[in-house]
Amino acid sequence: MTDQLVAGIDLGGTKTKLGLVSASGKIQWRGQLVTGNYEDPAAFVEAVSEMLEAAAQQLQVRLGGVGIGAPNGNPFTGTIAFAPNLKWKGTVPIVELFQQRLRLPVFLTNDAKAAALGEKFFGRASALQDFIVITLGTGLGSGIFSGGRLVYGHDGFAGELGHIVIRPASNRRCGCGRRGCLETYVSNKGLVQTYHELIENVSQAERPVHAIDDAADVYARAKQGFAPAISAFAELGTLLGEGLAIAVLLLRPASIFLTGGLAQAAPYFLPFAQQALDDHVLEIFKGKVSVTVSELPPADIGVLGAASLLLKQQPGIETI
Amino acid sequence: MTDQLVAGIDLGGTKTKLGLVSASGKIQWRGQLVTGNYEDPAAFVEAVSEMLEAAAQQLQVRLGGVGIGAPNGNPFTGTIAFAPNLKWKGTVPIVELFQQRLRLPVFLTNDAKAAALGEKFFGRASALQDFIVITLGTGLGSGIFSGGRLVYGHDGFAGELGHIVIRPASNRRCGCGRRGCLETYVSNKGLVQTYHELIENVSQAERPVHAIDDAADVYARAKQGFAPAISAFAELGTLLGEGLAIAVLLLRPASIFLTGGLAQAAPYFLPFAQQALDDHVLEIFKGKVSVTVSELPPADIGVLGAASLLLKQQPGIETI
Repeated sequence: MTDQLVAGIDLGGTKTKLGLVSASGKIQWRGQLVTGNYEDPAAFVEAVSEMLEAAAQQLQVRLGGVGIGAPNGNPFTGTIAFAPNLKWKGTVPIVELFQQRLRLPVFLTNDAKAAALGEKFFGRASALQDFIVITLGTGLGSGIFSGGRLVYGHDGFAGELGHIVIRPASNRRCGCGRRGCLETYVSNKGLVQTYHELIENVSQAERPVHAIDDAADVYARAKQGFAPAISAFAELGTLLGEGLAIAVLLLRPASIFLTGGLAQAAPYFLPFAQQALDDHVLEIFKGKVSVTVSELPPADIGVLGAASLLLKQQPGIETI
Repeated sequence: MTDQLVAGIDLGGTKTKLGLVSASGKIQWRGQLVTGNYEDPAAFVEAVSEMLEAAAQQLQVRLGGVGIGAPNGNPFTGTIAFAPNLKWKGTVPIVELFQQRLRLPVFLTNDAKAAALGEKFFGRASALQDFIVITLGTGLGSGIFSGGRLVYGHDGFAGELGHIVIRPASNRRCGCGRRGCLETYVSNKGLVQTYHELIENVSQAERPVHAIDDAADVYARAKQGFAPAISAFAELGTLLGEGLAIAVLLLRPASIFLTGGLAQAAPYFLPFAQQALDDHVLEIFKGKVSVTVSELPPADIGVLGAASLLLKQQPGIETI
């Protein structure tokens, strides 16, 4: 009998990462595609399915099922509903589409919950009952473990830390349609916007020749010691810390793990986040929550967590 | 054999309510004392114990144990730690004190978690897995159920919604030592302070002769139609709604129940709370969370919840 692997799909606003994962959490094959290339969810499902089938054949393994982590992915309905960072509008029945195409068990959760599951089963959270994983990239997501179980809420949509209005007077418009959400400051786009605001205070002569396009550019300039880039990360850290303080007051996690593309720049923002966190919690809570960068590669954590939907008993959902 | 009842103690900053409760949640005897009369926790424990023993003797029942809900009461340590609204400073080993005096099983939780347990077992939340109970009075407490279990956090101190800094620029000092906490606006004291700020805009001639001392006075004036009192409740409602929005974004409860002395004034603030809640959550969440006043009497809900620590299997704590 051939070995069986399960597919983990980390469906992101920009890229979708695929993996074939063993029961012990080893990723035996990796693939990737550009999510935005697919106007239609069915075409996306077809492309992913073909890649997975080809990989399984090449490895001579059987595909045991598919786990998906996606923005606004809802485990209760099996759909992606109104995800601001995806092209697909309305409600996408992603579980049904994959089931019809592959005739396999398919489970769904949202991207940040998938990252939290990855940390729980394959990272440093295996012994923790109360922790939070924050995904920092296109948006800000949060996957919350409380009492050893994922927090889903009554409709599966718990964990929207990124959409807490952290600056009520702000003009920064969020993908969700409102203004001043935490994610308008703490995300790739938020970082770039803060940088552009800060550079206004720098004389034309002292500004770099090339304009900044994305968060990676700001990171590169910070590493070169360019003050506005360093300050942009400091402000991002302060806002992140304020947001974490809210989660800490409500949920008292023992640890917070950061992941996602932006997390690699943690040396530039984490000290500010820790300071702001301490400034915004009760005296007796100060300095008591560990905030660190996940040791799982950002490219793997979501794939592993998505695969865990099939590989591990799911904490928080009795009915799976 | 005589019947057995358990004692429920709702230990508050002002008053402590006692009850002897049957397994079905019937309060067979009620007592009350003024918490602030006892400088020393041991004297308080002695007075409560004497009242409970006398009541049990009078009813000819056996006392089966004691459940306590108290500000900053921690189920993991059995202590009350640094409660800003109590006279007793430092850490009070309340469970040990009662155990030594009464030689009975004693369990502790915090006051808002006790209210949530009361609503779960004896109120309208019996069928709900995800809900929040907000206590409005001396302070603002929150007891959170997620996935059918109480949220404790890693150290038992989860649920500090009242200490989220909702107005960073505010000068209102909180009992916790910081400024701008939600509870500096949404509490008895917060309401009175808002009233005093609003009355500054009223000409001396139009102000009532008697000064306002407490929240009950503001409530009485609102019922008389006095505009600054009505506006003070409106502002309280708006701030409450902003706070609830944060909890809704993170936890997605199906329902929120309000209790405590201030909850009786809900007609004057609840519409504003619901509006602010809708204004501060994602578009797809609007109008989807029920916010109502608990139907359990505020004087009973904490006593019932405290008693449930012995009467019911505790959801959220495996180790009891």
